[in-house]
Amino acid sequence: MVATLTGTPEALKSSGAQKIFAAAKCGSVSLAQKSASADDIKSICATADDLALTLDNGASFGGSSSFLMKLVASLAPASSLLGNGDKDAAHVDSWVTYATTNFEVVVNALKASAGKGEASLVDSVKKDVDYSISVLNCHLIPTGYMVGDKVTIADIALAVALQSAAEEKLWDPASDDEKTVNIRKWFSTITSADFFTAADAPVAAETSVATSSAEGVTFNGVAPAVKNKLYKRNRIRIKEVFANPAYIGQEITVAGWTRTLRKAGGKLLFIELNDGSCGTSIQCTCEASETEGFEDAKKSGGTGSSFQLTGTLIESPADGQAVELKVRVAKLLGAVYGGDPKGETVGGMLYPVSKKAHTLEFMREIAHLRPRTSVHAAAMRVRHAMAYATHKFFHDNGFLYIHTPIVTCADCEGAGEQFAVTTMLGTDPHTKDVTLPVYEEPEKKELSKKELKRLAKKNAKGKQESNKPEEVKIPGAVDYTKDFFGRRGNLTVSGQLNVETHACALSDVYTFGPTFRAENSHTARHLSEFWMIEPEIAFADLEDDINLAEDYLKYCVEYALEMCAEDLEFFENSPHGEKGLRDRLKNVLENPFKRLTYTEAIEILEKAYADGVEFEVKPEWGIDLPSEHERYLCENVFKKPVVLTNYPKEIKAFYMKLDEDGKTVSAADILVPKIGEIIGGSQREHRKEVLVERCIEMGLDPKAVWWYVDLRKFGTVPHAGFGLGFERLILFITGLDNIRDVIPFPRWAGNAEF
Amino acid sequence: MVATLTGTPEALKSSGAQKIFAAAKCGSVSLAQKSASADDIKSICATADDLALTLDNGASFGGSSSFLMKLVASLAPASSLLGNGDKDAAHVDSWVTYATTNFEVVVNALKASAGKGEASLVDSVKKDVDYSISVLNCHLIPTGYMVGDKVTIADIALAVALQSAAEEKLWDPASDDEKTVNIRKWFSTITSADFFTAADAPVAAETSVATSSAEGVTFNGVAPAVKNKLYKRNRIRIKEVFANPAYIGQEITVAGWTRTLRKAGGKLLFIELNDGSCGTSIQCTCEASETEGFEDAKKSGGTGSSFQLTGTLIESPADGQAVELKVRVAKLLGAVYGGDPKGETVGGMLYPVSKKAHTLEFMREIAHLRPRTSVHAAAMRVRHAMAYATHKFFHDNGFLYIHTPIVTCADCEGAGEQFAVTTMLGTDPHTKDVTLPVYEEPEKKELSKKELKRLAKKNAKGKQESNKPEEVKIPGAVDYTKDFFGRRGNLTVSGQLNVETHACALSDVYTFGPTFRAENSHTARHLSEFWMIEPEIAFADLEDDINLAEDYLKYCVEYALEMCAEDLEFFENSPHGEKGLRDRLKNVLENPFKRLTYTEAIEILEKAYADGVEFEVKPEWGIDLPSEHERYLCENVFKKPVVLTNYPKEIKAFYMKLDEDGKTVSAADILVPKIGEIIGGSQREHRKEVLVERCIEMGLDPKAVWWYVDLRKFGTVPHAGFGLGFERLILFITGLDNIRDVIPFPRWAGNAEF
Repeated sequence: MVATLTGTPEALKSSGAQKIFAAAKCGSVSLAQKSASADDIKSICATADDLALTLDNGASFGGSSSFLMKLVASLAPASSLLGNGDKDAAHVDSWVTYATTNFEVVVNALKASAGKGEASLVDSVKKDVDYSISVLNCHLIPTGYMVGDKVTIADIALAVALQSAAEEKLWDPASDDEKTVNIRKWFSTITSADFFTAADAPVAAETSVATSSAEGVTFNGVAPAVKNKLYKRNRIRIKEVFANPAYIGQEITVAGWTRTLRKAGGKLLFIELNDGSCGTSIQCTCEASETEGFEDAKKSGGTGSSFQLTGTLIESPADGQAVELKVRVAKLLGAVYGGDPKGETVGGMLYPVSKKAHTLEFMREIAHLRPRTSVHAAAMRVRHAMAYATHKFFHDNGFLYIHTPIVTCADCEGAGEQFAVTTMLGTDPHTKDVTLPVYEEPEKKELSKKELKRLAKKNAKGKQESNKPEEVKIPGAVDYTKDFFGRRGNLTVSGQLNVETHACALSDVYTFGPTFRAENSHTARHLSEFWMIEPEIAFADLEDDINLAEDYLKYCVEYALEMCAEDLEFFENSPHGEKGLRDRLKNVLENPFKRLTYTEAIEILEKAYADGVEFEVKPEWGIDLPSEHERYLCENVFKKPVVLTNYPKEIKAFYMKLDEDGKTVSAADILVPKIGEIIGGSQREHRKEVLVERCIEMGLDPKAVWWYVDLRKFGTVPHAGFGLGFERLILFITGLDNIRDVIPFPRWAGNAEF
Repeated sequence: MVATLTGTPEALKSSGAQKIFAAAKCGSVSLAQKSASADDIKSICATADDLALTLDNGASFGGSSSFLMKLVASLAPASSLLGNGDKDAAHVDSWVTYATTNFEVVVNALKASAGKGEASLVDSVKKDVDYSISVLNCHLIPTGYMVGDKVTIADIALAVALQSAAEEKLWDPASDDEKTVNIRKWFSTITSADFFTAADAPVAAETSVATSSAEGVTFNGVAPAVKNKLYKRNRIRIKEVFANPAYIGQEITVAGWTRTLRKAGGKLLFIELNDGSCGTSIQCTCEASETEGFEDAKKSGGTGSSFQLTGTLIESPADGQAVELKVRVAKLLGAVYGGDPKGETVGGMLYPVSKKAHTLEFMREIAHLRPRTSVHAAAMRVRHAMAYATHKFFHDNGFLYIHTPIVTCADCEGAGEQFAVTTMLGTDPHTKDVTLPVYEEPEKKELSKKELKRLAKKNAKGKQESNKPEEVKIPGAVDYTKDFFGRRGNLTVSGQLNVETHACALSDVYTFGPTFRAENSHTARHLSEFWMIEPEIAFADLEDDINLAEDYLKYCVEYALEMCAEDLEFFENSPHGEKGLRDRLKNVLENPFKRLTYTEAIEILEKAYADGVEFEVKPEWGIDLPSEHERYLCENVFKKPVVLTNYPKEIKAFYMKLDEDGKTVSAADILVPKIGEIIGGSQREHRKEVLVERCIEMGLDPKAVWWYVDLRKFGTVPHAGFGLGFERLILFITGLDNIRDVIPFPRWAGNAEF
């Protein structure tokens, strides 16, 4: 089909004509153009203004440029320019209208007022355009085109309109503004397409691409953005290179570390470069005749060397990779030891981070280099994602992040052995003749349970003068009043007691910080230093607590499936990973957790035992369930996460709320397949008298936790919370087996290198 | 103006008619309705289908229901139903079209296929509706109405369309989904308005309100949301009550702590209740005759007691408050000690968190209760916001959060005195007769500088067998090989050295964790335990580093101004706060930081000194600038944040990159008014030989940091980073003076209570 667009010289250069030409080019409609006077155009078609379309069958049309664009698009053979199907067509129509009403009209008004426009008009137009752009940006979050998965006239009309708007400085396609990240990507794609550039030169397409950012696309809200952002990378992150097809054909710079370097005949180098932004490395090709710095690159020592590479991104001719970089300039930043990978050893080995697979055990010994390996890098990316998801989940739900203290003086939790924090050993480890101050006064009798009860009664009458504990001076024991804090300082085992103080005032709070256990355990599930997340909710009971925990865990799983797709796929296929990983995670996401009481669980286990299931420990009411029982319930009986509640009070902490039966407490442990216990929580005992009673029962002086008891004296409220070991969550999400592999620098008995 | 809508009985009940009636009601157009057969309607107006509009002047109209709605709206006297001005009118038009194309068409298609619809059709419709809703939701982020600040037919058309969509279960106005938080608020407002309810009963308006969440509105992106969210609060957060006018007239439940309780004549109680979600408390009125639980409430003990209150939210007749709660049921959760505020003391005082203002010093002694005070609660909300902004800033910029270790064995940083972490003192502080293992072997000579140089040379040839330091056994010194970690463990003073290992693999990383100083300082600017943020960027130099720091600091300031507006206003007017706080912050936001070298700064200071400015320390090149110099530059000379660079190498750490002059290093400190130094950063020495040289110059055995040196052997890259003391940032943002007041439980020499 051939057609002619006749217009005044100005009209043919207008954005209206550009829309029509772009549609024609895109739809392979052969469209001639002809310049004419306004009168001549009227004579072609009475309804025409300054543009008229004549088909080769003689029919002529006037009307708006949008209408003419639609006409031209309708001439295209077998194209989907108008949208596929009625629904898409309606969408296309409505966006074409949107381009006119929300951009063209206002831009033209502004142009018409050129120079004479009042500041208030300019402001108002700018505001309108801003918000129209934000609507488009949101619309473009899940998709690359306005409608469907192909270019339509909606894209064309809007891109032209936005180009005019950019010319009027109503928005900046080269900005770094988060609020326009999607629209800039789309704009750059459309305006740099052939059909578009034929009609006009692209607007700063390269700049726009070079500064657009692919990360966080799904997660960009409308947070305040720093105006005039200063920090710009002098490279494109490799993750972004892969994410944005607009880079193809562009010259870009990347930087990173060599995963492999292959030489072919002295004239070719293939460098797989990785910068940690994603798991996949980018294939870079250097040619002796084409690449500046070729000779240096050859002497880099290969795996582990660092480069900055500039060149053109091309669609790869090779199988299995989408793009590759044809390197124009190779800048060797750092060779592997003197260019000779055998010249230096680490821990008695050659530079170890090569293609050759080392054991994870060995990599722990060179933890400073292990982020350069695929497994640890992926684990760290997942760890970051889970930390961010945690903060996002609680923030979005109205929780405040409270930094509970690391050094504490409370030794009442019973959660585990504590490390001492002291300056009495001297700050220099080589200090000679360290002497510890020791009490010499006569021993003060330790309080008997009976005595504690008497004190509690007195306490209950509210008559004592101080509710703080008196100092206990045991001859021969270290006198910590001489230590830095004037008392014995310990590394915290949990932030819970502290965070409760803030829950009982700010209602919804959480901690996320390091906790410590001085236990000599060498299992794949325990560390001496690990991070814990502990939310605490006021005005809440055990059921609220379990609901929150289930929501939170599922949120993390969903976030990982969505945001860490590449790394989860890697773990699923890695020898260190887990087959069926994502199915296991989806199973968690899609099923409600099974909830039952400890007592019901014991009944199930007793029956199984009677039926011949072999347990090392015979199940009976009152025992602390060993891992074999937990796993049996989770993996064999229910095949999904299990929540056990209402444990015997004897095996749980003093602060858990006593149930009405007087035998159990309102505790809840969440068990998941593969890991076992991942979350432990409870409703807290908020009745002061019962709490004091429970302290004494457990052999704890209530005065040692005087401030904790205070919360129950002044406006006590029902409240609940739980704790989740962060590293166990990462094991759960990645499928890795050893907790030492999911934390940057693991600490355990005998190990605190680095 | 009077008009009549004639339609078939079905048509008059349709959503089309509902739009028309709602527009009429809203515009005060008197619109009668008349039922007729389809034939009769055709006879009224030939173009009519099943609805015809007749004006009282006899003119009749058919056409789409949207068209008829516009007509009716145009009849309204002095209304803005069609949008004010041409631009708004165009927007209104386009949204009315949107309601048809994006909702009505698909919903009708679905209805038409009722039951027979293929699953794929339902899925596709649902997907379309989902995304149209997300567009609307984005559009509604900054505004409460579709166009302008009043109801228009765009709101009416869309609300009716969405109601139909809800009836077809295409979306859920009562859900908790983050993705629809704005649209649900808007929907609830429109559908519960009089003009709308007259036409139809509101769709689950109450439920929708009760579960909608006001928090984070500005920040909600399109993060994955947990389906079927389980955790629901049994109360509305007070912040949400104030934020959402839709609660007015509804019965709601709130819970919190009494800030003041005033009794009036035995028949009235006025309770100001606060739940920490915001600074403002809600005024709640209980009447003896109206309020269940009135007698209990009277005996609560007043300030500090906790309540759950249910009642109707009404616009307040009293001055100075917008709304108040008329309480139907008052549930006393926790009295202040036995209902008698004099019955118990804390730290020797009556329950102290009352209206009476206590000193901040005193409140530190009862840190477990201070979150119940306005100052500390506001500080904690700002602290949370800054922590979240920090994570968001780095995450959005592609940085990974790395948890560097808390217990380290490196003692090389020189950043400050370290605490020892040990189990050699016993885990029980009352352990008797603690004996420390001590070396008895003959002393091994400490290495002289000459010897270190010789070793370094050997090292440089890459021939030594191990690059790890040999054990030093000094007789009389503690034998830490017997300690828990098999070596001396310390609390970290900085995560920087550790995080560099991950920057040299993952490129863009940051830490945010606790750090420690065992220094006996009692200033308002120092803590023994504080949190630090340390980003580290690969392929970056000092300028990149400063750019990043300036962006980050400004982001935090803007985030606070935007998201903590209420709390900043409070601090500005609090006796503990700072007059002109927000102006100071805006000044930081709006001006580029002044950058100059240390040498230039010294020249300025020397000139000032010569001109008679009184400094305690005479400025001269080579000194470590005291606070008086820093503040002079910042507050007197430049009156904005100042970045000082290129300090003498003697006063900076070994790892900073040596400048070409051999005298200075590429360090940068950022000084801000009020605080002084808030950020310290540097480009790192990435040249192995120079680093080793610098170690030796500073008296440090390079082997002690063998793994740190390793990073320079294997693909070294230029990199840089900085550290920001988090508590100083909070001081900077809140205007508070003492660092002990911006952390939940401050630790300093002699103090680790709680």
